[in-house]
Amino acid sequence: MSALDQLKFDDNGLIPAITQDHKTGEVLMMAWMNHESLQLTLEKNQAVYWSRSRDRLWAKGEESGHVQKIIEIRIDCDADVILLQVEQVGGIACHTGRKRCFYRVYKDGEWVTDEAVIKDPEDIYK
Amino acid sequence: MSALDQLKFDDNGLIPAITQDHKTGEVLMMAWMNHESLQLTLEKNQAVYWSRSRDRLWAKGEESGHVQKIIEIRIDCDADVILLQVEQVGGIACHTGRKRCFYRVYKDGEWVTDEAVIKDPEDIYK
Repeated sequence: MSALDQLKFDDNGLIPAITQDHKTGEVLMMAWMNHESLQLTLEKNQAVYWSRSRDRLWAKGEESGHVQKIIEIRIDCDADVILLQVEQVGGIACHTGRKRCFYRVYKDGEWVTDEAVIKDPEDIYK
Repeated sequence: MSALDQLKFDDNGLIPAITQDHKTGEVLMMAWMNHESLQLTLEKNQAVYWSRSRDRLWAKGEESGHVQKIIEIRIDCDADVILLQVEQVGGIACHTGRKRCFYRVYKDGEWVTDEAVIKDPEDIYK
């Protein structure tokens, strides 16, 4: 059985992929993959996800140039979660122009933004 | 609107929670939370998940003693993923007795186990 066929995709054919900066260890984002996007990720050695909102393959950085070069791919004990170690080109993973999507922290009952916008999204997505 | 009500739970009332060791930065596991388990996590300051396989609340470490003390909680840009920084008591997050669930790495077309079992599961779950 091929490595991909050992994975447990959900009823929609998707599996969560956690993406971590290989240098800092920061979790940059979590997105979803289907069989094809993971196959492409392995072939291109760059992260390709499945966009649920756009219902299509999403080669990370296709518009922004902020591609993610694959350093390592892991799976968990249940083979239903993927963990990517990547080199984040441009140092921006989030569509808001921040380093990572997890820019809000829980503090005194509220979500507080503590990561700065590095580049205005209007300048990223032209 | 309360902090919890700002989160986007899926059609099953669940949200993915990524759990990271606050010292090493290693991603230990990914599990699911519902509104109640996140509320309990905040109250107890220890991770409480929703077990999809057992269809019930799952206070991490309830059997094993390997509880996860909460250091920090973050949410992503879409408010549909949670990121926990924890202190992993016992140094074992995975039910296989390993430090973390992501103990298999992709290499030459195969998933290769490269994390040792720290404690036999039979000694953990008596």
